[in-house]
Amino acid sequence: MKGFFNVKKPWEVFDIIDGFAPLGEEEVLLESALGRVLSRDVVSLQDLPGFTRSTMDGYAVRAKDTFGATESMPALLELVGEVYMGDAPDITVKKGEAVKIHTGGMLPDGADSVVMLEYCNMLDETTLEVQRSVAPLDNVILADDDYKKGQCILKKGHRLRPQDLGALAGIGLVSVTVHKRPMVAIISTGNEVVPADQTPLPGQVRDMNRYNFSALCESCGAVPLHMGICRDNFDALQNMVTDALDRADTVWISGGSSVGTRDITLEVLETLPDFRLLVHGISISPGKPTIVARAGTKPIVGLPGHVSSAMIVAYIFMLPLLCRLSGENRDPFARFKGRVDAVLERNIESASGREEYVRVKLIQRDGKLIADPIFGKSGLISPLVDADGLVCVDMNTEGLYEGQQVKVILF
Amino acid sequence: MKGFFNVKKPWEVFDIIDGFAPLGEEEVLLESALGRVLSRDVVSLQDLPGFTRSTMDGYAVRAKDTFGATESMPALLELVGEVYMGDAPDITVKKGEAVKIHTGGMLPDGADSVVMLEYCNMLDETTLEVQRSVAPLDNVILADDDYKKGQCILKKGHRLRPQDLGALAGIGLVSVTVHKRPMVAIISTGNEVVPADQTPLPGQVRDMNRYNFSALCESCGAVPLHMGICRDNFDALQNMVTDALDRADTVWISGGSSVGTRDITLEVLETLPDFRLLVHGISISPGKPTIVARAGTKPIVGLPGHVSSAMIVAYIFMLPLLCRLSGENRDPFARFKGRVDAVLERNIESASGREEYVRVKLIQRDGKLIADPIFGKSGLISPLVDADGLVCVDMNTEGLYEGQQVKVILF
Repeated sequence: MKGFFNVKKPWEVFDIIDGFAPLGEEEVLLESALGRVLSRDVVSLQDLPGFTRSTMDGYAVRAKDTFGATESMPALLELVGEVYMGDAPDITVKKGEAVKIHTGGMLPDGADSVVMLEYCNMLDETTLEVQRSVAPLDNVILADDDYKKGQCILKKGHRLRPQDLGALAGIGLVSVTVHKRPMVAIISTGNEVVPADQTPLPGQVRDMNRYNFSALCESCGAVPLHMGICRDNFDALQNMVTDALDRADTVWISGGSSVGTRDITLEVLETLPDFRLLVHGISISPGKPTIVARAGTKPIVGLPGHVSSAMIVAYIFMLPLLCRLSGENRDPFARFKGRVDAVLERNIESASGREEYVRVKLIQRDGKLIADPIFGKSGLISPLVDADGLVCVDMNTEGLYEGQQVKVILF
Repeated sequence: MKGFFNVKKPWEVFDIIDGFAPLGEEEVLLESALGRVLSRDVVSLQDLPGFTRSTMDGYAVRAKDTFGATESMPALLELVGEVYMGDAPDITVKKGEAVKIHTGGMLPDGADSVVMLEYCNMLDETTLEVQRSVAPLDNVILADDDYKKGQCILKKGHRLRPQDLGALAGIGLVSVTVHKRPMVAIISTGNEVVPADQTPLPGQVRDMNRYNFSALCESCGAVPLHMGICRDNFDALQNMVTDALDRADTVWISGGSSVGTRDITLEVLETLPDFRLLVHGISISPGKPTIVARAGTKPIVGLPGHVSSAMIVAYIFMLPLLCRLSGENRDPFARFKGRVDAVLERNIESASGREEYVRVKLIQRDGKLIADPIFGKSGLISPLVDADGLVCVDMNTEGLYEGQQVKVILF
C-alpha cells in the first residue's frame, strides 16, 4: 500500500459509516421477519385484545355485589350462566348475579370484575358463595390494555425479536415492511489463494476470508454473494468489481496478502464512476491497511490481507456498516451489550496513537472471569478461533496491566 | 390445572433438561454451517499454512548475514531473485544472498527470516543494503504455526462462529459433521384462538404464541414446525400430539388460556407410549403452570396460557432445552454473557419461595444503565415488547430495592 493518505481515527470511521443510506424496503411475511429491521413505524389498527377478558378462572360479577364479603360473611350470588371460550356471551350480569368464566374468556355485559375460583363455593346448583371482595377491574384485561387503536407499537429502525412477531400477529399483521437485507459481494484476491476444496500446491493457501466474511454477514442478516477468487491483475479485478457493484449493495475486497494487490485494488477503485475514497488506513492495530470508499451510494471496502486483521476489522467496523445499511437504529446500549467484565491475566503493551484490539480467551477462576491475551501473529487464524473476544486498548493508553478490569467484546 | 404434583425448583428443571440426549448427526456444507454445533472433535489433517511464509513485504535472507547491520553500518547482500505469490520458489538463498518476497510468499530454501522492505535499499540492480539485523524466524510464519497435523482445532459441542468456518476452510474441510437441528412441533390450543390472518369475532384472539415460539426456535438454530391451532378437545389434541411426535424432535403445546385445556393436555399426554411426567409446575413467576415431560426420548412441553408467561418460560428454559438437543456444551460463561449490569429504578416486591422474572426497560442516564421494571399483566404481550430484558429476583429474596445493582438478562 503506497502510504496512507487518509488515515482515520476509529470514531471518524464510524461517522463515515453512518453517512451511508439505509437500503430500500420490502414486504415480508411474519414467518421470515425475525431479525429484520422495520422501515416504518408499526401502528396498531385495532384495540388488543379487542374485548374485556378474564385473567383468571372464576366468576364474572359486579364488584359492588362482593363488597364486604369475607370467609365468615360471604356474599351470595345467583349463577346465571357460563361464558364459553371463544364465544361472545349472550348473558348480562345483573345485580346479585354471577357468570362462570375461564381465563381469557370475554367478560359479559354488566360484569366489571372476576372473582377467582379459589374464593368461591357453589352452595347448590345456582347459589354461589363469594368469600372475598373484588374491586372493579380486578382480574380483567381491558379491550385496549395491550394496544390501543392508533398506537405506535414498534418504531422504524427496530430489529424484530421473537416477541415482536407475536405482537404483530396479535394485531393481525401477517406481513411487515422492512429494510432490504444488504447483499455483500465478497471478493478474495491473491495469486496464492485457491478454493477451499482444492489441495494447495506449495506456496498456495486456501481461501479462508470467503467463509469468515460470508458467515459474519449471515450472523447479522446480510446476504453474502461470493464473487470468487481474483488474481492480482488489474483487468480481472476491474471486471469483478464492476460486476459485483451491479449485483450487490456493498463490495468487500479482501486482500491478497501480496503487496501488489493493495495497489491494484485502489487503482481499480479509482476507475469506478462517482468514486470517492473515504478512509485509507485506520489508526487501529491490527487492521490499519483498511480502505473504505464509495462508488455512487455503495460502500466498497478493502480489507487487510492478514486473515485475523481482516476479521477483527470486520467485527469492529463491518458489522456496524451492515447494521447501517439494514436501517437499524444505533443501539443506545451497544457499548454495554455483548460485553463482559473480566480481569486481565497478563500485561498488554500497546503503542499509543492507535486503538489496539487484543484477542483474549476467557477463563473462570474463583467465580471470576479472567481475560487471557492471545498474542498470535495476525496472519494466523488459530488465535482468533481460540479467542472468546477482543479487548480494546485505548488510543491514549500505553498498555493495560495484569489484574486490571477490562471489557471483553464477545464474538 | 388440577394442582401441581411435581413442582420443581428452576435448577432442578435445568438438570432434567440436561437429561435429554442430543440429537444425531449430519454432514453439512461449510456455507450452511454457521451456528451449527459440532458433533465430533475436528482434527487437522495437515499443517497450516503448510509452508513457511513471509508476514511482510521485504527480502528473504539468512539472518546471520544481517547480524550487526545498522543504518550507518549496513549489511550488503546480493539480490538473486524474487518469490512470486502462489509459487514455490526454485531459488536457494545462500550465504550473502537475498531474495525479494511479498507478504504471504513462500520462504525459499536457505532463508530463515525476512527483512522488512522499510529497512532495505537497493544500491544497484543486484546490491541490497540491509540497515537492520533480523533474528532467525523474524517476520515468518512456520508451516505449522496455525495448526499442526493431528491437532484438535475445535471441540465437539462447539457452536460454529464465523472465524471457525474460516479455519475449517483453511484446513480443507468444505463440509463438517454437526448435530441435527431440533425440529420443534408447535401446537396452539384453545377454542378462542384463531389464525393471525383471520379477523377475530368478539371473544376470539389471534394466535400469538405460534409466532413467538417459532421465532425463538429460529433464533437458536432450531426448526419450527407449525402444527396448527387445536380446539379444547381430547381426540383432536391426541391426534395432533401423536402426529407431532412422529414428525418432530420435541413438541411444545402452548396453553389455550382456558382452564379446561391444561387438564386435557395432561390427560392426552398420559395416553402416550412410554410417557413420563418430569415437571408439573416450576417455582417461578410468571410461568408456574409449565409441564415438562417425555414420550420415549422426546421432550414434550406444556407452556402457560398467558402469552408473556409462556414467552418468559421459553426464554429461560426452552432455549437451554434447544441447546441441549443441539448438542451444545453448556457454556461455562453463560451466566456472564447476554447480561448487563444496571441500577434498579424502582423497588420490586416478590414472594419468597419462587424465582421471579421481572421485565425491565433499559434507560441510559448520566452514562449509567438504569433498569426500569415494567409491571404489566402476564396475559399481555406489550410489556414484553417494551422490555429489553428480564431481572431475576432470587427465590430467597423478598424483593429488590431502588438503586440496587442488578443483572439484566437481555432478550
